[in-house]
Amino acid sequence: MSDLALPLEVKIREVGPRDGFQNEPEIIATDDKVRLIELLGRTGVCRLEVTSFVRPDVIPQLADAREVLERIELPEEVCISVLVPNERGLESAFELRDRIDEVNVFLSASETHNQKNVNRSIQESLHELERVLPRACDANLHTEATISVAFGCPYEGDVPRERVFAIAHKLVEAGAEEIAFGDTTGMANPRQVRSFFEAARVELGEEVELTGHFHNTRGQGLANVLAALEAGVSSFESSFGELGGCPVPPGATGNVATEDLVSMLHEMGIETRIDLDLLLEAAREAQRVLGRPLGSHTLTAGPVEWHRGAAAGGNGVHPAS
Amino acid sequence: MSDLALPLEVKIREVGPRDGFQNEPEIIATDDKVRLIELLGRTGVCRLEVTSFVRPDVIPQLADAREVLERIELPEEVCISVLVPNERGLESAFELRDRIDEVNVFLSASETHNQKNVNRSIQESLHELERVLPRACDANLHTEATISVAFGCPYEGDVPRERVFAIAHKLVEAGAEEIAFGDTTGMANPRQVRSFFEAARVELGEEVELTGHFHNTRGQGLANVLAALEAGVSSFESSFGELGGCPVPPGATGNVATEDLVSMLHEMGIETRIDLDLLLEAAREAQRVLGRPLGSHTLTAGPVEWHRGAAAGGNGVHPAS
Repeated sequence: MSDLALPLEVKIREVGPRDGFQNEPEIIATDDKVRLIELLGRTGVCRLEVTSFVRPDVIPQLADAREVLERIELPEEVCISVLVPNERGLESAFELRDRIDEVNVFLSASETHNQKNVNRSIQESLHELERVLPRACDANLHTEATISVAFGCPYEGDVPRERVFAIAHKLVEAGAEEIAFGDTTGMANPRQVRSFFEAARVELGEEVELTGHFHNTRGQGLANVLAALEAGVSSFESSFGELGGCPVPPGATGNVATEDLVSMLHEMGIETRIDLDLLLEAAREAQRVLGRPLGSHTLTAGPVEWHRGAAAGGNGVHPAS
Repeated sequence: MSDLALPLEVKIREVGPRDGFQNEPEIIATDDKVRLIELLGRTGVCRLEVTSFVRPDVIPQLADAREVLERIELPEEVCISVLVPNERGLESAFELRDRIDEVNVFLSASETHNQKNVNRSIQESLHELERVLPRACDANLHTEATISVAFGCPYEGDVPRERVFAIAHKLVEAGAEEIAFGDTTGMANPRQVRSFFEAARVELGEEVELTGHFHNTRGQGLANVLAALEAGVSSFESSFGELGGCPVPPGATGNVATEDLVSMLHEMGIETRIDLDLLLEAAREAQRVLGRPLGSHTLTAGPVEWHRGAAAGGNGVHPAS
């Protein structure tokens, strides 16, 4: 491996409390959310997306956004972000300005997906975000913009990366300091991801932070992370317990599990500042709250560390290969 | 991606009927095995490990090895392999010589794992295989030797690769044409895998076929495949439906799912000659026979192809990133 090309440290934004909780069929109690977010907060994670200011009639799962933000107590060094879909969402965020460090806006790279997701054209979304982003910058909030279906759209198929970069340019011009590229339905492959991020770096310059947001829909989430690392990407988003990700179809897995991401990175000698044991504790608690086994592999198998020198596993009779 | 370094075509050995079926708590009926193997045989897969000649009192799941081999009808181009643990197993294979193309022998890279797995020291295993391999070669059988826990042992921790290569050398000297390196409990990471296979190629020369056998225990199976591809590896083993793999602990996933592997490779433009739709049909039938959802992601989500231009997924309300 061209070791020099791999980042020494990676920033992870944990998005489970937003991306995960919003996709749960049963609404999670605010008390449980606060407890889970605080468990995540003490893992060492540097960025935590805790909720979203969306219409409560559309996403009742996050109707308690304000209460969650008011109640959570997190270490100083954790950057708290919220998703805001529009100017109204930003105004709600402003009301809790002292609780928030970052805002995340979003739109899709395909017309059909954007229409189905937010009932607007890409152009209409861009116009809105061109109002939201400068106001967020003026308020000294770190600004992230996520471009969904950036590696392929379940409705339109292949998405030309020139279109994605053109959207990214407009977002950067409007004030986005960080662009996340979402593989919303797990259509990306590692060859594409590596070449995409190499081109994105050239296209968007060194100033903009580029973030990988991968789903594990077809089991390839961490392979895509590896390809992005090789292209120099050092910022990723993931969900504890493999929660969330707007699974298509039902039963399909969502975001890359933060535990699996952290496990792989640490084993590769890449720093995340996250304590894997504490992270697993948070994921176990989420499993308890949700009352079902979660998709995270490391949560089931335990960290590699636990199997170093321990008398674990094997049944002594089956030929194991 | 240094595209030139990636192989244009990959050979996959489907090991589910051996590695998967042997790990099922309920013994699968011979009729079902034959049907599933024949479904796999028509996918275009080039290599198929169908059973193992092990002691039926130890592994009753494969007690019907002889009957399975006698009954299955597979296309001419499919290479049929069987696992043989020792000379007695090889003799059983010889009795069905005209039904078999390849034999696979195995041992572990750590003393503790070898002791627990086959109740012998590594030296004792090597002595046995030094009798088995030349006899298999003389019978014109393709010979594969698998080295288990090659990337880390759940009992002994890190395994020095020099020890793995020393074992590999002895196996090659005894007649092994192909060496598979098993990440038996999913302890490998991509950085290690890439550097391991680069060194193995130098150490073992160009003549020996090097095969990657990865488990998805911590979700990193396909990332390890990608790292191996980048090191020039073009031969892999996997299980349809993500069956098998001697999971440690119970509930942990086993081998990389063949569907997920094929999906990723095809999306990357790497040929496998496997028809993914037919493979999914076989995995669905395995799911029906076993009566539980299997771990394969592509089996749940469907191939990327299905989502190109199709009106699939999304619920039109949730912000999907």
